[in-house]
Amino acid sequence: MTATTTSGPGARTGAGTGTGWTLHPDRGLPADPVLRSLARQVLEAIQHLPIVSMHGHVDVGLLERDEAFGDPASLLVVPDHYLVRMLVSQGVPHDALGVPRRDGGAVETDPREIWRTFASHWHLFRGTPTRFWLEHVLVEVLGVQDRPSAASADATYDQVATRLAEPGFRPLALLDRLGIEILATTDAADADLGSHAALAARGWSRVVPTFRPDAVLHVDRPTWRTDVARLGERAGIEVTGLPTLLAALEERRRAFVAAGARATDHGHLSADTTPLDPAEADRVVVAALRGEVEPAAAQALSGHLLLEMARMSTEDGLVMQLHPGVLRDHDPRVHVQRGPDVGYDIPVVTEYTRALRPLLERYGHHPRLRLVLFTVDEDAFSRELAPLAGVYPAVRLGAPWWFLDTLDGMRRFREAVTDTAGFFNTTGFVDDTRAFLSIPARHDMARRVDAGYLARLVAEHRLDLDEAVETAVDLAYRLPQAAYPPLLG
Amino acid sequence: MTATTTSGPGARTGAGTGTGWTLHPDRGLPADPVLRSLARQVLEAIQHLPIVSMHGHVDVGLLERDEAFGDPASLLVVPDHYLVRMLVSQGVPHDALGVPRRDGGAVETDPREIWRTFASHWHLFRGTPTRFWLEHVLVEVLGVQDRPSAASADATYDQVATRLAEPGFRPLALLDRLGIEILATTDAADADLGSHAALAARGWSRVVPTFRPDAVLHVDRPTWRTDVARLGERAGIEVTGLPTLLAALEERRRAFVAAGARATDHGHLSADTTPLDPAEADRVVVAALRGEVEPAAAQALSGHLLLEMARMSTEDGLVMQLHPGVLRDHDPRVHVQRGPDVGYDIPVVTEYTRALRPLLERYGHHPRLRLVLFTVDEDAFSRELAPLAGVYPAVRLGAPWWFLDTLDGMRRFREAVTDTAGFFNTTGFVDDTRAFLSIPARHDMARRVDAGYLARLVAEHRLDLDEAVETAVDLAYRLPQAAYPPLLG
Amino acid sequence: MTATTTSGPGARTGAGTGTGWTLHPDRGLPADPVLRSLARQVLEAIQHLPIVSMHGHVDVGLLERDEAFGDPASLLVVPDHYLVRMLVSQGVPHDALGVPRRDGGAVETDPREIWRTFASHWHLFRGTPTRFWLEHVLVEVLGVQDRPSAASADATYDQVATRLAEPGFRPLALLDRLGIEILATTDAADADLGSHAALAARGWSRVVPTFRPDAVLHVDRPTWRTDVARLGERAGIEVTGLPTLLAALEERRRAFVAAGARATDHGHLSADTTPLDPAEADRVVVAALRGEVEPAAAQALSGHLLLEMARMSTEDGLVMQLHPGVLRDHDPRVHVQRGPDVGYDIPVVTEYTRALRPLLERYGHHPRLRLVLFTVDEDAFSRELAPLAGVYPAVRLGAPWWFLDTLDGMRRFREAVTDTAGFFNTTGFVDDTRAFLSIPARHDMARRVDAGYLARLVAEHRLDLDEAVETAVDLAYRLPQAAYPPLLG
Repeated sequence: MTATTTSGPGARTGAGTGTGWTLHPDRGLPADPVLRSLARQVLEAIQHLPIVSMHGHVDVGLLERDEAFGDPASLLVVPDHYLVRMLVSQGVPHDALGVPRRDGGAVETDPREIWRTFASHWHLFRGTPTRFWLEHVLVEVLGVQDRPSAASADATYDQVATRLAEPGFRPLALLDRLGIEILATTDAADADLGSHAALAARGWSRVVPTFRPDAVLHVDRPTWRTDVARLGERAGIEVTGLPTLLAALEERRRAFVAAGARATDHGHLSADTTPLDPAEADRVVVAALRGEVEPAAAQALSGHLLLEMARMSTEDGLVMQLHPGVLRDHDPRVHVQRGPDVGYDIPVVTEYTRALRPLLERYGHHPRLRLVLFTVDEDAFSRELAPLAGVYPAVRLGAPWWFLDTLDGMRRFREAVTDTAGFFNTTGFVDDTRAFLSIPARHDMARRVDAGYLARLVAEHRLDLDEAVETAVDLAYRLPQAAYPPLLG
Repeated sequence: MTATTTSGPGARTGAGTGTGWTLHPDRGLPADPVLRSLARQVLEAIQHLPIVSMHGHVDVGLLERDEAFGDPASLLVVPDHYLVRMLVSQGVPHDALGVPRRDGGAVETDPREIWRTFASHWHLFRGTPTRFWLEHVLVEVLGVQDRPSAASADATYDQVATRLAEPGFRPLALLDRLGIEILATTDAADADLGSHAALAARGWSRVVPTFRPDAVLHVDRPTWRTDVARLGERAGIEVTGLPTLLAALEERRRAFVAAGARATDHGHLSADTTPLDPAEADRVVVAALRGEVEPAAAQALSGHLLLEMARMSTEDGLVMQLHPGVLRDHDPRVHVQRGPDVGYDIPVVTEYTRALRPLLERYGHHPRLRLVLFTVDEDAFSRELAPLAGVYPAVRLGAPWWFLDTLDGMRRFREAVTDTAGFFNTTGFVDDTRAFLSIPARHDMARRVDAGYLARLVAEHRLDLDEAVETAVDLAYRLPQAAYPPLLG
Repeated sequence: MTATTTSGPGARTGAGTGTGWTLHPDRGLPADPVLRSLARQVLEAIQHLPIVSMHGHVDVGLLERDEAFGDPASLLVVPDHYLVRMLVSQGVPHDALGVPRRDGGAVETDPREIWRTFASHWHLFRGTPTRFWLEHVLVEVLGVQDRPSAASADATYDQVATRLAEPGFRPLALLDRLGIEILATTDAADADLGSHAALAARGWSRVVPTFRPDAVLHVDRPTWRTDVARLGERAGIEVTGLPTLLAALEERRRAFVAAGARATDHGHLSADTTPLDPAEADRVVVAALRGEVEPAAAQALSGHLLLEMARMSTEDGLVMQLHPGVLRDHDPRVHVQRGPDVGYDIPVVTEYTRALRPLLERYGHHPRLRLVLFTVDEDAFSRELAPLAGVYPAVRLGAPWWFLDTLDGMRRFREAVTDTAGFFNTTGFVDDTRAFLSIPARHDMARRVDAGYLARLVAEHRLDLDEAVETAVDLAYRLPQAAYPPLLG
């Protein structure tokens, strides 16, 4: 096996440099020879299909500027919260990884030093999706020759740096090189969308915005008053209560649709969509505008506004994406010191059956609503998510999210939801990353998982091979396209 | 593989007709050659054992009348909520499937049209148990020659229709043809049991009733007052409060026992069995009789009455089956329009450890109580259900229920509960279907799953092959028999 | 396969005696030939490593006395709650198993009779970890020649009895024979630690105590006032309120550290660590000292005291082990009649993300805190436990606990947590048994599971074989050592 394995011996078993590094073509496929050979046949049919990336977090400005990426560390290490959190969990300080401090305090600034710290801890990533993705980025995208280790750190740093300096590795060139057919970004409700316009003018209309209004739907967020003021300015509507807040949101959604947006995205602590009495909802908004916020009322209002978002989707056709169940910034001191998205978001139990009932009562059969549900609580797969998606025409299941976006997590997802939701009530694979170079790695992993799962159905005579291949193409390409249809022209 | 696969290419890859259609003998067995060969040996020992069907929902009138079944659509499509919900989830209207409207509004009435709609959406069922069951019904029971598709719809319709017209396919003849040794029906507390008496008189005492008092244990159900009045009439006891309600229930249970019943069946939202003060319970019943219902009190009373059901089981010996954790009629508009059981029942988190404590404190060691627990919340398998069944003599675990009655769901059940409950604290396989022709398919699937699971234990040297075969016979036949013993001479 | 299987045909298929009995060397390894061969290579590297047993419940007095064990039944049957609960669940009375009654009522006292009862029910343990462990104890440790059955009961009883009479099977000799490098016992907060001192004086300092203060952290326990009084006496500090309670606990922790303790252990119903206002906490303690206890306040205080335990660990360096989520003594009548630990402890849903937040806010990054989390609620593996352990430096995940300490439970644990926590945020294997002779069986099972899991990663090209072997040694030996570092010298 070792002759054909996917990666090097890690930090603690000696690694030479310049020895070359290739990934095994069967990585991530089932070991059993019968399944392996079937999975290979399925994978061949989908491996090189274009990438439909409808839920990314790449900064649109990066694409508009289209400049060479920075150094290896600031591209691949510092902003990757999967990677940072693992190193931190084993005692590596945020400072040593160059994660900026809000107080301007000193952190490591030498990218080579940061890279060495990462490389010398490579063994921590054994068995993790982070390693599987990084191996794809380093070998398949960047052509790195050596496995990460303390010994090879400088060599790999130089290999990556050289590659990043090449014109073919500028952001827009990479869209082609990586086979990305469409790329959705995530944009605040008050975004000016100028970068998207500029890109479209230059022929890059395949980069589309996504309407993400979380900041203005949660009146208990510290920056809510500023954010809602900016929303009003951008919309040309002064927000004085619920009606003007809704009007401003509708106005901005129109602007997003005009800019090519196909979807909205909502990150809420719970999936609650219980309506409030409009007068009560207005009272909460007005009070919040005065700076008076009751936490319980704020939580209730966010559910009411989520229901309003569904109503607006039935009117403007934007696909509604819901990502509930993550308690953000679990450690308040880290949040104060480093800000959000540094690895301290922790899932909580998430209920869907009762929480979504008000929304589905109203709009579950509405021909213009598409509600895509994501979760980090796999306990809901077979109990709530598949039964809901398996009956309501408006509901689709997104791909396993975040901590479940893994070889085994995606396998468990298919095993748990296919029984009741089938394949066609899922969106196929939807990636979710801010790491641009990692997008193909996410799709590659998902395609391998689906190939392995479909291979098992064939081997157990539950599906024909031709059906499996056709379904694999659906999951990799057709379903994501169909789940996020264009609203323009 | 394709030469030996179980089914055709589905709606979107062309399907010819008259090409013949057979199911692979190894369908549903593990792919690994070592496991496959062991699983075959286990399956051979159980595949043709008689069927003990102790939890069915077949209408007893259908058996008493013993007339030929209707057309293919009204037998296999319209009443099957698994099938209907999947088609609805992909945008097929209930009307097009001929699901009747309560307002008498027009729905599709041409069974051939309904069959075409079903057949042309065959691809939606890829990977689902519905397909696995239907394949068994169509090929093994009805001898259909063509795989369902738009192209073959008329041919398969005619093949099924012809078969259903044969005398050998009348309900009672099918009891023999399908190898059903005993069939339990589900009957309301006020059922007159005349059909069972008539069948017994004709020598069909293998058709036994099951006491299902849900309608009268939930005072918040809209029809409760009518139902409880009918209960009183049938029992010859006017229900004026808790004592008379309990007396009427006891009287009816006696009638069910006399009619050959072996079990009761209880569908509650929660598994709560907390007793109320009898005076308070009486007050709630009396108020409900006046039409005054407080939801919380109604819910509490249903728990109190569940505990009374356990007490009665210790007296009359009826096995107590509990099916908690399903929120019925999730979409109220569909319920108003189409009634219950059209696919909108959605599971919720279900707690057992605390909920069942009052019942188990009182009766968990009672020699005459057998409490069979079912669930659609697989998260409780290893955490609560196996530990409870693994210590209380009164408790047995029923088969994975409803959305979990699948190849992968039943495998996960064995993997999760055997560690702590073993095999002998389960009932073996108990089917749960209103689709008469599908009963053998349910047992066939369960026998394949258990054969595969037991094969793995043998291959991992955790069990001997002779033990595995013996255990397979227990799960398929002996344990279901033992779990529901006859109460009559 | 049968020629090489691990065990006999069980009670109901005839078993001869004196036929010899050996365990298959590959038991518990994956069946697939590719995985089997890789797993063998991994297992070879770890199978004979010394045992680090940091969470045992062996009575230290048994080691100090170092006398021959009693008869086979009182060693292997009566005290084993896994075994007793399974027999009870199938109708064998506690009395027949010799489980003592608190009221002094008569129970079976003939160990041979008890052994016969156990042996004649051997088939109940098919597929359970109890059987897997017992097979190791009987064959590998005690050299029993016959598989348990009614027929072989007397023969196996005599074989075990003879072996137990040999000097080489006295407790201390077994520490060497079983390859136990270090053994932690569990000791109440008021333990005099004399046995540990005596053992150390005789050169057996490898037997270390563990500080288990549950009895004095729960003011609602019936014996709390007695226990806290004894705590005060032992500490030389009269407990009159919260400050003196904390002072006494700190004093006792110092004594435990001096006696070689490396850890504390906490069994709480919930993982809550919410601080109370100190005045309120003091009020609850003072009231409890007067015998006045409010259940809610008692529960809240136990969370407050758990937080104090973490604070003390940051000061004295004792590793903090938390075992939440078990509802003890589910059947109060059995508890009154037989006392605790006879099989009636049932898991409940356990929340970690919010419950541990107060503790982790304060100490999650503290260099001297190590918090080891155990669970019997596997639903929290991927949703809460792995994300917490994957970012907080203080947190490690212990091995799957109790009902999850099984071949399939441990496999599911690795599959669910490795994605986010990796291997190095787990403690490796930590056993948890009061059955001394069973300790090697627990480690043997865990090593087989990890060998199988790592083999799959290699076969799927997610890991190199040399990395897998190195990681296996970490999980079996290095990580448990590192997780519980010595505090002395």
